[in-house]
Amino acid sequence: MKLEKLVGERFRERPSDCVVDSHALMVRGGYLKNVANGIYSSFTPLKRITRKIEQIIREEMDAIDGQEVQFPVVMPASLWRESGRYDSIGKEMARFQDRNGTPLVLGMTHEEAAVQLVREYGNSYLKYPFMVYQIQTKFRDEARPRAGLIRVREFTMKDAYSFHTTQSDLDAYYERCHRAYERIYARVGLPEVISVASDSGMMGGSVSHEFMLLTPIGEDSIAICKECGYRANVEAAACITPKQEKTASDALTLQHTPGCHTIEEVCDFLHCDKKDSCKAVVYQRSSDNGYVVLFLRGDLECNETKLTKYLGEEIYPAVITEESGLHAGFIGPVNLKGKFTILFDRSLEGRNHLCCGANQTDAHYTGLDMERDVKNAVFHDFAKIQEGGICPHCGKPAISVSRGIEVGNIFQLGTKYTKPMHMTFTDVDGSVQYPVMGCYGIGIGRLAASICEAHHDAYGPIWPLSVAPWQVHICAVRADNDTVKSYADKLYAELEKAGVEVLYDDRRVSAGVIFSDADLLGVPFRVIVSPRNVKQNVVEIVSRDKHFSSTAPMETAAAEIQKILTEVKEAKA
Amino acid sequence: MKLEKLVGERFRERPSDCVVDSHALMVRGGYLKNVANGIYSSFTPLKRITRKIEQIIREEMDAIDGQEVQFPVVMPASLWRESGRYDSIGKEMARFQDRNGTPLVLGMTHEEAAVQLVREYGNSYLKYPFMVYQIQTKFRDEARPRAGLIRVREFTMKDAYSFHTTQSDLDAYYERCHRAYERIYARVGLPEVISVASDSGMMGGSVSHEFMLLTPIGEDSIAICKECGYRANVEAAACITPKQEKTASDALTLQHTPGCHTIEEVCDFLHCDKKDSCKAVVYQRSSDNGYVVLFLRGDLECNETKLTKYLGEEIYPAVITEESGLHAGFIGPVNLKGKFTILFDRSLEGRNHLCCGANQTDAHYTGLDMERDVKNAVFHDFAKIQEGGICPHCGKPAISVSRGIEVGNIFQLGTKYTKPMHMTFTDVDGSVQYPVMGCYGIGIGRLAASICEAHHDAYGPIWPLSVAPWQVHICAVRADNDTVKSYADKLYAELEKAGVEVLYDDRRVSAGVIFSDADLLGVPFRVIVSPRNVKQNVVEIVSRDKHFSSTAPMETAAAEIQKILTEVKEAKA
Repeated sequence: MKLEKLVGERFRERPSDCVVDSHALMVRGGYLKNVANGIYSSFTPLKRITRKIEQIIREEMDAIDGQEVQFPVVMPASLWRESGRYDSIGKEMARFQDRNGTPLVLGMTHEEAAVQLVREYGNSYLKYPFMVYQIQTKFRDEARPRAGLIRVREFTMKDAYSFHTTQSDLDAYYERCHRAYERIYARVGLPEVISVASDSGMMGGSVSHEFMLLTPIGEDSIAICKECGYRANVEAAACITPKQEKTASDALTLQHTPGCHTIEEVCDFLHCDKKDSCKAVVYQRSSDNGYVVLFLRGDLECNETKLTKYLGEEIYPAVITEESGLHAGFIGPVNLKGKFTILFDRSLEGRNHLCCGANQTDAHYTGLDMERDVKNAVFHDFAKIQEGGICPHCGKPAISVSRGIEVGNIFQLGTKYTKPMHMTFTDVDGSVQYPVMGCYGIGIGRLAASICEAHHDAYGPIWPLSVAPWQVHICAVRADNDTVKSYADKLYAELEKAGVEVLYDDRRVSAGVIFSDADLLGVPFRVIVSPRNVKQNVVEIVSRDKHFSSTAPMETAAAEIQKILTEVKEAKA
Repeated sequence: MKLEKLVGERFRERPSDCVVDSHALMVRGGYLKNVANGIYSSFTPLKRITRKIEQIIREEMDAIDGQEVQFPVVMPASLWRESGRYDSIGKEMARFQDRNGTPLVLGMTHEEAAVQLVREYGNSYLKYPFMVYQIQTKFRDEARPRAGLIRVREFTMKDAYSFHTTQSDLDAYYERCHRAYERIYARVGLPEVISVASDSGMMGGSVSHEFMLLTPIGEDSIAICKECGYRANVEAAACITPKQEKTASDALTLQHTPGCHTIEEVCDFLHCDKKDSCKAVVYQRSSDNGYVVLFLRGDLECNETKLTKYLGEEIYPAVITEESGLHAGFIGPVNLKGKFTILFDRSLEGRNHLCCGANQTDAHYTGLDMERDVKNAVFHDFAKIQEGGICPHCGKPAISVSRGIEVGNIFQLGTKYTKPMHMTFTDVDGSVQYPVMGCYGIGIGRLAASICEAHHDAYGPIWPLSVAPWQVHICAVRADNDTVKSYADKLYAELEKAGVEVLYDDRRVSAGVIFSDADLLGVPFRVIVSPRNVKQNVVEIVSRDKHFSSTAPMETAAAEIQKILTEVKEAKA
């Protein structure tokens, strides 16, 4: 199509509200427009990109025997009550009533709808396994949308649901889907995406993986073992601290620690290492505002995902009031009195020679011996794995922590949905069983933004050919020159006729505007028709990533361009 | 794909809740499943059909310079307040609040979103005209969903919005879009769809057309002139009654009409023609329950669309209470006292010798002269055009009324949205103007159901090749026969390799089950591989509509089938 007619605005200035490059470039390039907090409209270039991503995903889902279906965006609350999630999910689910007062919800995921669709079909073991998937709009009322399409409230997602008669069949299919995901990321231009073990969160189930694009702007932290290759979301990674040989304990001794509130201040004042301190982290339950006090080794941080999972409910950072009975900055495990839930991280197990709060203002203890001074403490894993930490898999202190964007996830769900929703099949031996499920998601818009994040320069996105909005961008520099214009028109017609997706810029604007717009649109190959080139009877062919630059005779340029495109496609395949 | 693996159930019994054939067949064939009132999930066969319809629409929209974009499903109420529709639209719009209490709505149409997207872009006359479109899920809380996909609450729609600097440019584009719609209906297999003038309803604007598939199960009534070809939705058609030459009036005379409530009873009792009576039809305003009394000629019916449009607000059929001051069955225009809105249809203009109610129980008047007895009456067109009525275009009494399904619509919107939403452009002369808009919709699911309604027999849908879920259905009758199975396997592989969309039934079930399932899936060409055929070294090739039946040698069957498909495609093109 002609660039002159392309709806959308392009501009030079980085919008002040864009914190990540992909967002800034996609706004500057006329890819999207904000409609409300975390809600966007897409212009044509983005729509073309997402359609290509969708088609790649569709092909890979079909290749693992997926069947494309469609679930509704609007679902009756009754369906979500069957699984119990109508109550267990909080504010992120949009709820409303129809004209008759029937409660409805907007789908944020479709496990319930998938079970509802196939509940009668899957009545015999003979029908299994099968997988259904859809590509559909979802709404999740995120508290903090951010970074453009990276975290939004309304999004398009491919979500797939597989059904199996046995866990081993699910295992095999899960692995197959894992490989399909690898192919998808490779095909859209992100072969560097890695899978990491993850926490399954509100989806339930046991085994789950997230697919991560490692980038400093990512919201997730990923622990990677440099020794054995173990990879997990920090949320899901076990935190291991070395057992220490116990030497004879000192007496528990009260120390006057005036004005020492933070663990750093206390350790400085008492001349002890943070690793030899026992610190308190306090939360409150969302349900009843009750206090939860977690003790852990002073140098570690709380992994809130683990804590939430252990408690089985939502928490928030505590507001410690005078009436609470807690002395902020001086909380310790000895003689802590009040109606608190008290928890201990396993980093403290068997430890002595620790300093800790004394539950009175300006006072700490030294010489804490957990076994001696804190009777009946039970230890669990609540801490966050750290840079340099011990790998839960190989046991070596080789963990590095990177940031990443989650660009997909796969979950083993077991019978979490089929059981409460009464989906059963008759097995080969006549017994009635619940099928086990897997679910598999990829957010389309987030993937598009991630591709941009991974492939851009200061001037714009550099779209991989497989997902680029167009394949070739013809720049007619000085379109007021008749030879330039008539040749560029001809080349445009010829390439379009050959089925090449061409964006054609024949505006009578400066070369600067032509090239900066081309940079923002990020089309992989640019063909420059200019008075100077025409005089030499050539066109320039330049790749957006600047790795390729060449000239071709005007007569054979169309054929040459098609040859280059074919070569790139074949090299990727 | 293999039919054995196709998720979805097929069955023989017509579901009792299906009132139209397309709904019954699509339920019986495993195309869709009800999730809530007017909300469905689609199985793979329907998803494949709708994707093909979408692609045809996309190609035709691109061919008239449309640019595919995407608007959100969830929009802020503030956007709909800009146009005024947040208040003017009633219960059919779903509304809810997000976690911060911000009011949101579900899109049922996207004029506001379209203006929001291009408001800054379209700032100069140089950018015009342009058209953006999307294919997206919408939700409209219909009071009475019915007939499967014909009238639902959640639906997928192609909606397009064009922007122009002048009315004449809109006129030209509107006509271009009209022709694109004709091509779309022809390509999906419904060349018989006609366009009719329509009422523009809540969309506003002046000129509008609906595209109708004429069928007795349609919800709309369409007036067609057998003489001049005039076509209009009955809602929008002017009702013309012949002027009558006025003879000398009789005196207004009170008649005792005991127990005569209906217009039939009154006319029978008084021995007068219904055309010589003045009847009352009573409504109440939704806003304040105030009574609206419409008088019209006894044989005519009220066109509620016209009445609503005239009043500028919603109405409902009246409940006439004792306190209302109205005497149900005896309401007339003479001495009607009370706080009513009183309206007169133009069928009564200049009439005399009429009978009418006398506003007292068991009494009517004869000899009513509108001019003499009802001072200052103003007449408007409130009546419904009737079978045999006068054509508003050619004036001949040649109107026939048919029923139809609306499978698309196009509207000229003028500045109804651009003006309140402050979208302006600088014109060539430097003046600042509001662009004029057109909008163009097609419901995808309803179109799929309409195709089924127009193309089916007692055994199932007969999908046109252009939208069929698969092109070829291989039926291996007696797949337990090794020759049958191995040949059918080979043919399946060969056709798939050639890019033919094949559904392959190699289940070991009876021929009856194989063929009744094939009928329900409605694939255009069926290839029968059976022991008898194999013995004769042939396969049978039969079209679903039974118009084509042939045999082909086993060796060349794959090529033969491809040739047939190509011929059908070329014949349609």
